[in-house]
Amino acid sequence: MNTASTNIQTSSVLTSADLLAHWQGHRALTRRVIEAFPEKEFFEYSVGGMRPFAGMVQELLAIAVPGIRQVAKGSTEELDEHLDQSKTKADILRLWDEATEDINKYWAQIPDERFSDSIVTFGLYEGTVWSSIFYFIDNEIHHRAQAYVFLRSLGIEPPYFWER
Amino acid sequence: MNTASTNIQTSSVLTSADLLAHWQGHRALTRRVIEAFPEKEFFEYSVGGMRPFAGMVQELLAIAVPGIRQVAKGSTEELDEHLDQSKTKADILRLWDEATEDINKYWAQIPDERFSDSIVTFGLYEGTVWSSIFYFIDNEIHHRAQAYVFLRSLGIEPPYFWER
Repeated sequence: MNTASTNIQTSSVLTSADLLAHWQGHRALTRRVIEAFPEKEFFEYSVGGMRPFAGMVQELLAIAVPGIRQVAKGSTEELDEHLDQSKTKADILRLWDEATEDINKYWAQIPDERFSDSIVTFGLYEGTVWSSIFYFIDNEIHHRAQAYVFLRSLGIEPPYFWER
Repeated sequence: MNTASTNIQTSSVLTSADLLAHWQGHRALTRRVIEAFPEKEFFEYSVGGMRPFAGMVQELLAIAVPGIRQVAKGSTEELDEHLDQSKTKADILRLWDEATEDINKYWAQIPDERFSDSIVTFGLYEGTVWSSIFYFIDNEIHHRAQAYVFLRSLGIEPPYFWER
C-alpha cells in the first residue's frame, strides 16, 4: 500500500498489502467453493442441522465490506446477515465480486498505523483492527471448511485448500 | 518478543507476539474441540468419507512443531503425519500440550526480520515465513471446522468459535 513506509519497517511480520492479498486469496477460494455447489444444494443442503452454505455466505458478505468500511471510515456499521434477498447462485457470485472490489477500495484508505487501534466492530465486538480483520478471515475459513464437508457428503470433490 | 523493536515499528500490522498469541488462541480452541469428541468417535467417526478428526489432529501435530522449528533453526524438517502412534485421546491431548510449550520455545528464537524470509517448509512448500505460519494456522482452522460438522452430526454442541 505504502511503499515508503513498508521499506522502513523491514521487521514487520507482514505488510498491509500482504494481508489484503492473503484475504483476497482466501476469498477467491471461497468463490470456487460456492461455484462447486449445485444450485439447489447451495441453498438447501446441510449436515447435522446446520445452515446451508448460502446462509453462511450471506453472513460472510454481511461482515466483509461493512467490517472493512468501519475500519477505513471509522463509521458505525450494523451487522445485517439478511441484507441480501438474492435467490440465485449467480446473484451471490455477483455480490461476491462487488465485495472484492469494495474491499480493495476501502483497504487502500487504511493507514498502516490503524491496525493496532482498538475497535468495536458492528458496535458489538471489541478488539484491535488487526484482530478484527483476522476474525473476518478466520470466520470465512471456518464456514468454508464446513461447506467442504457438505460437498464431500454430496460426493463432490471440493477445490484444493492450498490453491488461492 | 522484542519490546525495543516493536516500539519502533508502530506501523506493523501486528507484532510477532500478537501472532503467537493468535495461533495459541486457535490451538486452545482446537484442544477443546478434541475434548468434545467421545473417545471412539474421535478415532473412528467422520462424514462424507473424510478422515476422522484424530487423523487431522495427527496432521496438525506433524506440522506445528517441526514447521516452527524449521523457521527458528533453519533446519530441514520432514512432514511425517504418522509420527504418533498414540491411541487414546488423553495421549493426543498430552502431545498437544507438549507442542504448545515447544511452539513458545521456538517462537522466542525467531527474530522479527525473519518473517519476510523465503522458506521451503518441509522441503516442499515455497513461501515466506509469514505465509507459511499462516498456512499452519489456516489449515488448523480448516480441519477443526470440519470436526465441528462431525460433532453437529453426532448431536454434540461444539465449543463457541469466538472463544479462544
